Amino acid sequence: MLKRFRWLALAALMLLTALLAGLRESSADSNDERAGDREAITAVLSAQQAAWNRGDVDAFLVGYWQSPELTFSGATGISRGWDGVLARYKKSYPDRAAMGQLDFSDLEFRFLGPDAALVLGKWHLKRETDEPGGVFSLVWMRFPDGWKIIHDHTSTVR
Amino acid sequence: MLKRFRWLALAALMLLTALLAGLRESSADSNDERAGDREAITAVLSAQQAAWNRGDVDAFLVGYWQSPELTFSGATGISRGWDGVLARYKKSYPDRAAMGQLDFSDLEFRFLGPDAALVLGKWHLKRETDEPGGVFSLVWMRFPDGWKIIHDHTSTVR
Repeated sequence: MLKRFRWLALAALMLLTALLAGLRESSADSNDERAGDREAITAVLSAQQAAWNRGDVDAFLVGYWQSPELTFSGATGISRGWDGVLARYKKSYPDRAAMGQLDFSDLEFRFLGPDAALVLGKWHLKRETDEPGGVFSLVWMRFPDGWKIIHDHTSTVR
Repeated sequence: MLKRFRWLALAALMLLTALLAGLRESSADSNDERAGDREAITAVLSAQQAAWNRGDVDAFLVGYWQSPELTFSGATGISRGWDGVLARYKKSYPDRAAMGQLDFSDLEFRFLGPDAALVLGKWHLKRETDEPGGVFSLVWMRFPDGWKIIHDHTSTVR
């Protein structure tokens, strides 16, 4: 009888822990309290920008989910898989002149759950001959090794 | 003492319920078991297509989150709020001839949590003078009145 009582006390303690964890998670869902996640995602984008601006497309790609399920949508349709997205970047931006200097701005975060986020923003390329730019929508998921882009939809705005 | 025991029994029951609910939720996260959510989202898109094809832009907009936080990204930049998105549609498609016949195809679902989804797909317009088309990325959230698009990024593919 005492043993069963001990188990019930343990169950009650676990219940309380579960409830508190649930409470913490739902409050963490509020956008105001996701400062750490915003910082982590912003750091990935800053690293991407720095990689691009030293001409390192492979390092730029580190921000993306390294999976055959990664997708990139835009004016050329849908590119699939990490290799497909890398190939698309290398084809569209064959050399340093085409890559130019990249700037991301106006980031907007929307958390879709504890491990998912939507980030809107603007991109701008400064090149010798032109300055293309536009908007992007990035869908992020949190993995054991951090936040990664699982889908990118990018448009040029003229 | 008996009273406290009863409370602990209740707590244990609640704990079991919470654990089972958690289990159910995490298994429902697997894409294979989200058939109901896929159907619900597909139904919204079918209703949108039907509304468009009878020239009813207001009914088409019912699929979107009726909020000032709704966003639509594309070649014209970012439109904001339900009213802003409606205005953009009415400006881009002023009459039945401009609206043409809409067809959505190749839907791909990715669930980002119990209440969030990313849906990729293709759009095609059949008009008297041309047949534009392209790709879209829709971010969905589940609300008390069902799944709604909270962000739409649409591109024309030439």
